[in-house]
Amino acid sequence: MDTVVTALRSALADPDGTVVRTDPAVLDAARTDKSGWTAPGGPVAVVEARSVADVQAVLRTCSAARVPVVPRGAGTGLAGGANGTEGSVVLSVARMDRIIEVSVADEYAVVEPGVLNGALDAAVAAHGLRFAPDPASAAISTVGGNIATNAGGLRCVKYGVTREAVLGLDVVLADGRLVSTGRRTVKGVTGLDLTALFVGSEGTLGVVVGATVRLVPLPAGAPATLGAVFPTVADAARGAAAVVTGASRPSTVELLDAAALAGIAAHLGPQVLTETLGSSSADGAFLLVEFDGPDAAQAALGAAPRLQAEGGTVHHATSAVERERLLTVRRSFHPAMEARGRVLIEDVAVPRSRLAEMFERVEAIGRRHGVAIPTVAHAGDGNLHPNFVFAGDEVPAHVWAAADELFRAAIDLGGTLTGEHGVGVLKRRWLGDELGDDVLDLQRGVKAMFDPLGILNPGKAI
Amino acid sequence: MDTVVTALRSALADPDGTVVRTDPAVLDAARTDKSGWTAPGGPVAVVEARSVADVQAVLRTCSAARVPVVPRGAGTGLAGGANGTEGSVVLSVARMDRIIEVSVADEYAVVEPGVLNGALDAAVAAHGLRFAPDPASAAISTVGGNIATNAGGLRCVKYGVTREAVLGLDVVLADGRLVSTGRRTVKGVTGLDLTALFVGSEGTLGVVVGATVRLVPLPAGAPATLGAVFPTVADAARGAAAVVTGASRPSTVELLDAAALAGIAAHLGPQVLTETLGSSSADGAFLLVEFDGPDAAQAALGAAPRLQAEGGTVHHATSAVERERLLTVRRSFHPAMEARGRVLIEDVAVPRSRLAEMFERVEAIGRRHGVAIPTVAHAGDGNLHPNFVFAGDEVPAHVWAAADELFRAAIDLGGTLTGEHGVGVLKRRWLGDELGDDVLDLQRGVKAMFDPLGILNPGKAI
Repeated sequence: MDTVVTALRSALADPDGTVVRTDPAVLDAARTDKSGWTAPGGPVAVVEARSVADVQAVLRTCSAARVPVVPRGAGTGLAGGANGTEGSVVLSVARMDRIIEVSVADEYAVVEPGVLNGALDAAVAAHGLRFAPDPASAAISTVGGNIATNAGGLRCVKYGVTREAVLGLDVVLADGRLVSTGRRTVKGVTGLDLTALFVGSEGTLGVVVGATVRLVPLPAGAPATLGAVFPTVADAARGAAAVVTGASRPSTVELLDAAALAGIAAHLGPQVLTETLGSSSADGAFLLVEFDGPDAAQAALGAAPRLQAEGGTVHHATSAVERERLLTVRRSFHPAMEARGRVLIEDVAVPRSRLAEMFERVEAIGRRHGVAIPTVAHAGDGNLHPNFVFAGDEVPAHVWAAADELFRAAIDLGGTLTGEHGVGVLKRRWLGDELGDDVLDLQRGVKAMFDPLGILNPGKAI
Repeated sequence: MDTVVTALRSALADPDGTVVRTDPAVLDAARTDKSGWTAPGGPVAVVEARSVADVQAVLRTCSAARVPVVPRGAGTGLAGGANGTEGSVVLSVARMDRIIEVSVADEYAVVEPGVLNGALDAAVAAHGLRFAPDPASAAISTVGGNIATNAGGLRCVKYGVTREAVLGLDVVLADGRLVSTGRRTVKGVTGLDLTALFVGSEGTLGVVVGATVRLVPLPAGAPATLGAVFPTVADAARGAAAVVTGASRPSTVELLDAAALAGIAAHLGPQVLTETLGSSSADGAFLLVEFDGPDAAQAALGAAPRLQAEGGTVHHATSAVERERLLTVRRSFHPAMEARGRVLIEDVAVPRSRLAEMFERVEAIGRRHGVAIPTVAHAGDGNLHPNFVFAGDEVPAHVWAAADELFRAAIDLGGTLTGEHGVGVLKRRWLGDELGDDVLDLQRGVKAMFDPLGILNPGKAI
């Protein structure tokens, strides 16, 4: 038995190993996430923490033993950031999933990190509220995971990313001390903004064990939904730019390119696209635009001619059933990809005005490397998810070569490596290209200050 | 001649001292701001930087000489954060006031830090855009000052604070290196969020020399404005809470208590209040509520009965003239205070649901110390500005004693020392009460990492 496992079982009063798990299947599952990347080695234990005290005990024990700790939630990450690496202790907070408090008057909730996004939304919906961050994975991903990656999602074009939704955090530091940052007020500027620093830090500065998150009112009335088919993806990108600015901001602007539509057609059957969009869109692109709030219908009416001006054939959903059919096209993208093999989902972002150019680059890169790169974009944010489908457990070299060009293209267009998934393991080698040496040094300095022994998620994020 | 002045004039090629100013009047003006606090000593020079290179030269020179640097903009701060202290070099970026780029398609502007908030708004209004942060001082305060303090303002109840509006920063570090953080995309999670860390850091981590800020569309149509008079301030606080939640968020919710109204009546003449509000409100309170956007009129109609339910007598502005009269009541508060003496403007915030209680505490503290504490609140944010008017140049001891109780009351109600003005010099002694020792240690560790020689705005903020 590994000595750190013995020490953890003693510290957590867990002689039978029901909390400090070492079953091979549990260890193995913790090596991977939804990124398609599996750590080559594996952790020595997975601790399924039940409380803040458990988390503190793990960090004290691992600090004393100089053993790396990999914080983990539901394991739905897309960059390998929570994957248990060789010799590490995976510290899962998935069981810490309580909603501690909901304040309707002050529009916040106090939650444990393991609560699912969907569960929080369901719990507060009765009060006419919701948690704004809305990753596509909301049903299976945790609030703690959102915080670790500063996740975005489909409606952040209107409602902002996770950082804007986090008022305060309880964090266990590398040495086991528990600290609270931030506040329950909507404003507050006392001291440096450590809350914002922890958001998106991917478990490298501390382990989030509690969060005070902002809730926002559910929009009044029914949403208004448009689907538009465009001759080319560049037209669709221009259509997206045309509807996202102006006084009424859409709550969703999602773009699917021709390769993505082809994958969906193969998955759902081509007649679904033909019936829904009036086209199987082999060469075109699809844009889904939704407005919510009291002026939703009016805003959609105003947006339709702007889509038409860019060459769009616009379908206005006139019933909940029609809306559902339009949403289904978008929602079927990831299942369609996963049905074809393992998937590497990339996550570049560019200024919105460069979106059409970035799509052209994606197409050119795909042609050059002989790979299809079906792509969905949160087009209102300029955030593209180019997908690579491959066989086997390892991302092939030619896929990484194509991804490398993708990252460089995004940076070249004034963009970023990762809009919302995080750096994790998979994007570390491009970090310096985006940040530059001086900023990277500052980041490493901050990391060293919070974690002088380097035990928190080493080899990830920075 | 001080040796650092000689070194600065040499480094900046300024033999005549037109950039490195040492005129007594200039040095003296830099000792104070709008807080009512004047540094007991004074700076040895005020450098009026014209360029990034100037800022770099100042930091290199002052690092070499171990001389403190106090970054400063327009000097409109309310906590002494930019006041030139004994033996320091004040580094003014007020002359660096260019708007470098405005991207209408991507809704951002790239600006120098000295640009006035009002000037930026005026420059982008023609494109149907504005910079969301809206301090009451917008006409005279700089974007750099907003960033230094993470300023809020009147419309942040709907549009968020400065942090949400800053995409990226150019910062000169203590040793003179220039770094860029953040991005021009609306999303991006590569590395730690140093941009958010610099926002609100009050010049203690680096000197902001450029910013990429988000612009937001100007709301469509005319705003809809309500003024309501309540029998008590607690009723008005409940009225504010009743209109700020729900699907239509007001863009402004400002509360004036009885002492504030008395001051305004004395300043404008009591008939102005009587004509505008139908009451001189000697015992009551006034709430200004404004909605903008396409459903403004509808939202105001919905809000009126909620104000009435809390005891409000509601005036619905039916013309631009009537709106202006309601806004004038609020806008006259600060001039009314300044007409009576020197003013210490405090800045506590509490969860919105505790606003009525906080007003009760303010009243009780005023009674106990025999001082009037006229108070205006950004009530939608739970952010109160209790004002103390005094004679002479020094804040009297009994005012600080009352302020001390105010800060403790805010923290006791789950709130914060400062909602939007910053800690500066004036609130440092209460920092530990709010943050606790461990968080304060972390903040000091971050500070030491960015500024190992401790030359950046020492004695301020943290």
